[in-house]
Amino acid sequence: MTALSPVDEIRNLMARFAFLADGSPELGPLLDLLTEDAEWVVGGTATTGRAAIGERLGGSRAAGVAGPGSGTRHLITTLEVVPTGEDAATARSYWLLVAGGETTECRMVGEYRDTLRRTPDGWRISRREVVVGTA
Amino acid sequence: MTALSPVDEIRNLMARFAFLADGSPELGPLLDLLTEDAEWVVGGTATTGRAAIGERLGGSRAAGVAGPGSGTRHLITTLEVVPTGEDAATARSYWLLVAGGETTECRMVGEYRDTLRRTPDGWRISRREVVVGTA
Amino acid sequence: MTALSPVDEIRNLMARFAFLADGSPELGPLLDLLTEDAEWVVGGTATTGRAAIGERLGGSRAAGVAGPGSGTRHLITTLEVVPTGEDAATARSYWLLVAGGETTECRMVGEYRDTLRRTPDGWRISRREVVVGTA
Repeated sequence: MTALSPVDEIRNLMARFAFLADGSPELGPLLDLLTEDAEWVVGGTATTGRAAIGERLGGSRAAGVAGPGSGTRHLITTLEVVPTGEDAATARSYWLLVAGGETTECRMVGEYRDTLRRTPDGWRISRREVVVGTA
Repeated sequence: MTALSPVDEIRNLMARFAFLADGSPELGPLLDLLTEDAEWVVGGTATTGRAAIGERLGGSRAAGVAGPGSGTRHLITTLEVVPTGEDAATARSYWLLVAGGETTECRMVGEYRDTLRRTPDGWRISRREVVVGTA
Repeated sequence: MTALSPVDEIRNLMARFAFLADGSPELGPLLDLLTEDAEWVVGGTATTGRAAIGERLGGSRAAGVAGPGSGTRHLITTLEVVPTGEDAATARSYWLLVAGGETTECRMVGEYRDTLRRTPDGWRISRREVVVGTA
């Protein structure tokens, strides 16, 4: 089988990030999908570097908003991937956070605005801006 | 980076159309993704040509059903893209219209049945049939 | 137009399966997308072979849970496709079962864990594990 195209690798990366965000007991495998110097921006507040982003995501997990035990899944929908150079791309997507159990409930909807970079280990997210809700 | 494949270009086109439908204050950039002679069909009623389609979409915006100010996002999900010629393809997709705010609400679900054509400016939608709800 | 890549063919296959599951009056075209020896696993219970899987899916249709008349659509979202050999791949995806009518209702959310094989007739699903709800 032919090797994956850069766009396919990036689509897979975005799915894998969602799967790990929902199901991985450890944050490590999730943070490995970010570049070391990654920037994570929510509501205009930026967090820089894997370690600091890990603390931030750990806080959401502790609050039961996301991650294992929260009973939620990140549904990635509308997705555009735009190559911007040999080893660079941007992506924009809509996400829906859904909780499943006795009932199925849509908790949040929003958008990811991502910058991606190809590293020796594969494509990684170097910047993610999370938009919550609708403008 | 390798140029995008036709299928990747079409997937991006469909996402871009949704982003512009939700967020662009002007209808122009959205209508530019249709061919000049495009046909837009909803509930068996066809509208032909960019200008007429623009009026129709403008009506939905004025009614607050979709577009900026409506607080909604078009989530494109299940998507099949089928090449039908060198410069022609069809696509079928399921969409979910979601409103986000204090609560997250699924407003409508449905289907797009699209015909696409490659023009000198890139791939464009030449016909979109919108199915609302479920059969 | 270039032939579809294996990953694009698999993405299309997954969409086509959802379209047929929702809309095809007959189960035959749906079962044709499985290998003859396919395995279908839900909640740890495995069903093997097209005929037996057909009976199982027919039961869901008779119960009005899915298929034509149930008023539901299978929305395929977060999707990762991983080639594992020349003619083999795995895929993981999140699905949302949505009913549309007077209101739009999310009925169930879950995950597909698929194994795929290329046959002389094209890519087919050789194993699907359906996870319902969230872990």
